[in-house]
Amino acid sequence: MTIKNDTNFVPSPVERVRERLYIIKVGGKIVEESASLKQLLTDFSQIQGYKVLVHGGGRSATALAAKLGIESKMVNGRRITDEETLKVVTMVYGGLVNKQIVAGLQAIGVNALGLTGADMNYMRSEKRPVTDIDYGFVGDVKEVNAGLLADLIAKGVVPVLAPLTHDKEGNMLNTNADTIAGEAAKALAKHFEVTLMYCFEKKGVLLDENDDESVITKLTPELFEKYVAESVINGGMIPKLENSFEALNAGVKRVIITRADQIHTQNGTTITL
Amino acid sequence: MTIKNDTNFVPSPVERVRERLYIIKVGGKIVEESASLKQLLTDFSQIQGYKVLVHGGGRSATALAAKLGIESKMVNGRRITDEETLKVVTMVYGGLVNKQIVAGLQAIGVNALGLTGADMNYMRSEKRPVTDIDYGFVGDVKEVNAGLLADLIAKGVVPVLAPLTHDKEGNMLNTNADTIAGEAAKALAKHFEVTLMYCFEKKGVLLDENDDESVITKLTPELFEKYVAESVINGGMIPKLENSFEALNAGVKRVIITRADQIHTQNGTTITL
Repeated sequence: MTIKNDTNFVPSPVERVRERLYIIKVGGKIVEESASLKQLLTDFSQIQGYKVLVHGGGRSATALAAKLGIESKMVNGRRITDEETLKVVTMVYGGLVNKQIVAGLQAIGVNALGLTGADMNYMRSEKRPVTDIDYGFVGDVKEVNAGLLADLIAKGVVPVLAPLTHDKEGNMLNTNADTIAGEAAKALAKHFEVTLMYCFEKKGVLLDENDDESVITKLTPELFEKYVAESVINGGMIPKLENSFEALNAGVKRVIITRADQIHTQNGTTITL
Repeated sequence: MTIKNDTNFVPSPVERVRERLYIIKVGGKIVEESASLKQLLTDFSQIQGYKVLVHGGGRSATALAAKLGIESKMVNGRRITDEETLKVVTMVYGGLVNKQIVAGLQAIGVNALGLTGADMNYMRSEKRPVTDIDYGFVGDVKEVNAGLLADLIAKGVVPVLAPLTHDKEGNMLNTNADTIAGEAAKALAKHFEVTLMYCFEKKGVLLDENDDESVITKLTPELFEKYVAESVINGGMIPKLENSFEALNAGVKRVIITRADQIHTQNGTTITL
């Protein structure tokens, strides 16, 4: 906003500066090993302003399932979730992993609050319809109630979101953590200026997949189309970026694709409209 | 309060009517079987006014531990909690049992929020000192931060408290559900007029242990001393009632000892100062 010379200038409501909120999604591996978890929580605690952490936990779920003699079946990277597997992921994501993160954050002065979608009914989903594949108790998000969440965030509470939702008919449902992060970001964008950060194994989207340092620092829809046309961006990165643009179109200010050790520096690929 | 004839009468601040809050503690068994859980949640939903549910889950923890080849060792009714057992109770109490209750309450229109003591740092404990017995990762409550909890309750949120606390040094700690209920009640008594209900297998404290209908409907410190002197009240009921009087002395308005199927009727033994 340019400072105007009119001394009676008052910013209009639409120009009102909203508080920044960072929503960081990390995968399972980093939160499931105590050394990498500790570093992550330290980095996360250094992010200034309001923040939310969204976590996975698939490796721990697979490990517990194996100990209990339950086979883990994956299709397209998604876990087929039968009744016994639902209990496993509810225990691991909602209990073990979530509470280890919450307790770890509390120890370094971050007032964390662990949540599943059932808690305060903040995220309701519906069991995925059976087509060729029956994913079982897997939920597709239908409704996000971000009001109470936004109130808590504004009071300094830091939500830690497990990859679980509910159907408001009494069932927990297994839900992809990327989806949780994206849906939470879109709903919270009504209350905050949201930066959504997706962490993966590279420092960002790469110009050259063989050169880990060739990070594309900025992406827009125009650049994205250009890179796709040139096959610079391809494969699994395309749906990830399409989801990012969808979030931006729904009001999220920026999406950053980065590596977990960069979350406090905001380096990586910044995507805007 | 007597209505006075003075037309200028204004209630003094100390006479200000506080909102009622019911804190209901139920044992593990009732929340671990789907039929009794469903009935409990229906009864609980019928309690008018603000409410909190505190639950156990010991049988499920013992069952999961057994499946994982972990032996459950109990001393004086308390679980010896080594590192592996702590993971089990964190998964079962904080994940499985807590989220089944939360999802079940959401399904009948109760805006439940599952919490451990680590969440919003609402209850901090310290690892019990080793004496003759090393209980392991068992916490004795040291601090309750009820402010954010009270705000949420006043907004219609219904906390569902798992029997877990944390030490604010990164560790979850296994904590008796009766203790959680009592400590939460004392802290919330600064914000609400608190009724604390402990559910057990009888309809209340009995005059004659062989007659399940001989419920003592009212108890005061004087009656308690009389009944103890007459050996009408004895055994494990004495510490339970001593804890109740401690809660009353700390500001809780009334304690009701009852059976879970009576929570919405408030029948049972009502204890006041």
